[in-house]
Amino acid sequence: MNEIQSKLLNDAVDEMSRLPGIGRKTALRLVLYLLRLPNNEVQRFGNAFINMRENICYCKHCNNISDSEVCGICNNPRRDKSLICVVESIRDVMSIENTQQYNGLYHVLGGIISPMEGIAPSDLKIDLLLDRVATSDIDEVVLALSTTMEGETTCFYLYKKLARYPVAVTIIARGVGFGDELEYTDELTLGRSIKNRQPFTAR
Amino acid sequence: MNEIQSKLLNDAVDEMSRLPGIGRKTALRLVLYLLRLPNNEVQRFGNAFINMRENICYCKHCNNISDSEVCGICNNPRRDKSLICVVESIRDVMSIENTQQYNGLYHVLGGIISPMEGIAPSDLKIDLLLDRVATSDIDEVVLALSTTMEGETTCFYLYKKLARYPVAVTIIARGVGFGDELEYTDELTLGRSIKNRQPFTAR
Repeated sequence: MNEIQSKLLNDAVDEMSRLPGIGRKTALRLVLYLLRLPNNEVQRFGNAFINMRENICYCKHCNNISDSEVCGICNNPRRDKSLICVVESIRDVMSIENTQQYNGLYHVLGGIISPMEGIAPSDLKIDLLLDRVATSDIDEVVLALSTTMEGETTCFYLYKKLARYPVAVTIIARGVGFGDELEYTDELTLGRSIKNRQPFTAR
Repeated sequence: MNEIQSKLLNDAVDEMSRLPGIGRKTALRLVLYLLRLPNNEVQRFGNAFINMRENICYCKHCNNISDSEVCGICNNPRRDKSLICVVESIRDVMSIENTQQYNGLYHVLGGIISPMEGIAPSDLKIDLLLDRVATSDIDEVVLALSTTMEGETTCFYLYKKLARYPVAVTIIARGVGFGDELEYTDELTLGRSIKNRQPFTAR
């Protein structure tokens, strides 16, 4: 993999292999594929990323990705404006949207508190969240963060901060996943799902 | 995977998922990675492919990829100019270069004869090869094509065409690969490697 004769090709392979999970061998394969495309299609390819990076906005309310000042979810009159779901990243927004089970607004923190990676509360959009809770008519804040140590820490931090506002703070249900076998579920999850058992309803 | 709020992001994901082997889910992951990079790095990323596609040349002698009219291999005074290795694509040039076992020139056909895919001899750089053989001082043409039906057909076609020139036509050795177990080698390969047995030399 060290013999690429052309500097232009070599540069393209270097750039492609910057992408996570793309090694130099795969990068070369992808770049040679691009090389066989018509000129205008490669231009469209390259410019799509440049345009996106240059022109994308973040919603001034919820910090979600957006093509304008306010995102499509915050702007949608049919969404429940009294409910905010706090997530780590825009990918989580997409994941929850795909479930079609949630009709409130979001708040994208842009990360979670992680002393190991040097991410402090001030690096996240927490003040923006508290502002929203203080100034708009919010009834409930749903915490939907990962169930990792960092996620739990961030939940606890947010819970403390939100305590002084008249909002209900809830957290997404944690327990045995659909299709999981009890035998192979870890003790912590199983223990918690027994402790947090709920009334059975035949739906 | 259907809920991407931003058109800019969506376009970028569409373009990324054009690449072979990159589905929409992976494309989204890669694009979100790009979104976190500084503006100038994303510009460099996108422009690397545009520049490459726009400015890359093919060597006028051997059709190898090049940054100028004549490629680095054809231009290298230390390469043996009496030897041409015929390959299907520039990837094969790289593969053979990586072995560091070959010091001649190349000739990139740009494909192999394939009636199934509608690739005729006239679609390949065969005339260019015959020109080279006719006009320069070539002693030997090594055929290094895949051992598929199409590869064999192309070899045979080239062999017939080259017959009228005073050059030796050779073909790369085919046989049991290094590390292969005889038990699991297919009959055709094993049969041919017994038939084409060579004097044993202790090297």
